[in-house]
Amino acid sequence: MKRVLVTGGSGFIGRAALAPLAARGFEVHVVGSRPPRRAAAGVTWHTHDLLAAGEPARVVDSVRPTHLLHLAWYAVPGKYWTGPENVDWVAASAALARAFEQRGGRRFVGAGTCAEYAPGEGDCDERTTPLAPATLYGTCKHATRIVVESLAAGRFSFGWGRIFFLYGPHEHESRLVPGVVRALLAGREALCTAGTQVRDFTHVEDVAGAFAALLDSDVEGPVNIASGRPVAVADVVRTIARQLDAEPLVRLGARPIPAGEPPSITASTARLRDEVGWVHKRSLASGLAETIEWWRRGARD
Amino acid sequence: MKRVLVTGGSGFIGRAALAPLAARGFEVHVVGSRPPRRAAAGVTWHTHDLLAAGEPARVVDSVRPTHLLHLAWYAVPGKYWTGPENVDWVAASAALARAFEQRGGRRFVGAGTCAEYAPGEGDCDERTTPLAPATLYGTCKHATRIVVESLAAGRFSFGWGRIFFLYGPHEHESRLVPGVVRALLAGREALCTAGTQVRDFTHVEDVAGAFAALLDSDVEGPVNIASGRPVAVADVVRTIARQLDAEPLVRLGARPIPAGEPPSITASTARLRDEVGWVHKRSLASGLAETIEWWRRGARD
Repeated sequence: MKRVLVTGGSGFIGRAALAPLAARGFEVHVVGSRPPRRAAAGVTWHTHDLLAAGEPARVVDSVRPTHLLHLAWYAVPGKYWTGPENVDWVAASAALARAFEQRGGRRFVGAGTCAEYAPGEGDCDERTTPLAPATLYGTCKHATRIVVESLAAGRFSFGWGRIFFLYGPHEHESRLVPGVVRALLAGREALCTAGTQVRDFTHVEDVAGAFAALLDSDVEGPVNIASGRPVAVADVVRTIARQLDAEPLVRLGARPIPAGEPPSITASTARLRDEVGWVHKRSLASGLAETIEWWRRGARD
Repeated sequence: MKRVLVTGGSGFIGRAALAPLAARGFEVHVVGSRPPRRAAAGVTWHTHDLLAAGEPARVVDSVRPTHLLHLAWYAVPGKYWTGPENVDWVAASAALARAFEQRGGRRFVGAGTCAEYAPGEGDCDERTTPLAPATLYGTCKHATRIVVESLAAGRFSFGWGRIFFLYGPHEHESRLVPGVVRALLAGREALCTAGTQVRDFTHVEDVAGAFAALLDSDVEGPVNIASGRPVAVADVVRTIARQLDAEPLVRLGARPIPAGEPPSITASTARLRDEVGWVHKRSLASGLAETIEWWRRGARD
């Protein structure tokens, strides 16, 4: 019997992970601080605020999961890089891991970030790229990883998916892709940076599928969750504009690139492909088309 | 007004830190899970279990400290290197730091360890020696440091005292110095390793005084708390035996040196001396004489 508890199960990645987990034979339990408007079919919902004192242990006690997919974290756009709330999630994650260990949990997979790596040149590689987070967010994710990985040794199996850049339905409207899509759908100009930054963009359903595969494997330690197909931000914006036949509304260079933004953040996907066995499926063009369609339909499933 | 909250204030270091803090003009508050048999004069005691849900915030709320000296941690001899309880202290420390930040605390000093450093040759230096903890204890201390230091940036002042090897009154009886002293006082043989390991030993009152000085300074980041006088374990044992006139009872080499013990763990004390302005006072011979006397008096103050 494989019973997974998913934290952050109503979040951007979490909601997309439930179907792939069920398809892999997991009995799926989700914890969130508010019940969803409509619970996904075949999923058992548990309402707990993981940041409230004692709640991580309480939910683990009541679900008794064999597997834990820990996606919940502080994620308010524009604030999550530096918000002190990141520290609350270190405490909650440590409590969750400890409760999981005490109740005999078998495999824990957590959500890491490309912001754990030192900015540099070339693809971020799980084995060779130095770790040197420059933000409170990256530091707190890194600290959570080393604590839970060290606790896991000899006690339970541990994987850590490092997320790069995502897009897709249900992304917060203030972020890049929704911002451009919504402006162009409304016939407004999209004011962008020059867009020379190169990033690994992955569709959220591919990210969620990769997490389900990682959880269902016995691969230990960090694994980049990425498409392995770097693209300039300007090309993402231009692809959206082309699909909407709205290229004249795009203003690349209208806003400055924020100071300190690395020119390139890309991922080696060798571990994900060769060890987890997961290959990214969607092209950027088809993923963006789907995302545009979702916004056009009124941002509802 | 300087009001300090000391965690672990009834522990080995904490109890020795209260008088030096008071002497520096701090209003001293202590939190511990059990009230002491006899509270130190001029100290306000608060009984809270920092590992119980919600308690770190509760004690910070009730004391409203300007300064926090966070010494409490899991410290059961023989178990603390690998015990999962270390993870509980990461969670409690994160909660404590967050509550301190939210209530406007000014300076936080935490207790780190030489076990954060990668084992190597030469003195451990705060600026140049790589960090690579090999144990769950070292990893959890390291994680706590990076999280609280990153939270502190721009919010409050942060120091981190890395403790090396200690001895003195009130040390747990199962540890090296008390073990040898008690055996020899009882006329029993002291069965030791060959004692070739070189370590920095510091008297607990010097460690406590250095922490009080660090808290009362504005020195940021890690500072080794050590004597800067390395000594072979065999020489510590021989000094005790000489003072007790019991050299024939010492059996160096009767027990194997545990696998993986680094031959040398020593400290650079330049930051402690030049930036904090603290100089270690006691000689090993006088510190051991005092410790022997304490045990001879029946291990009571």
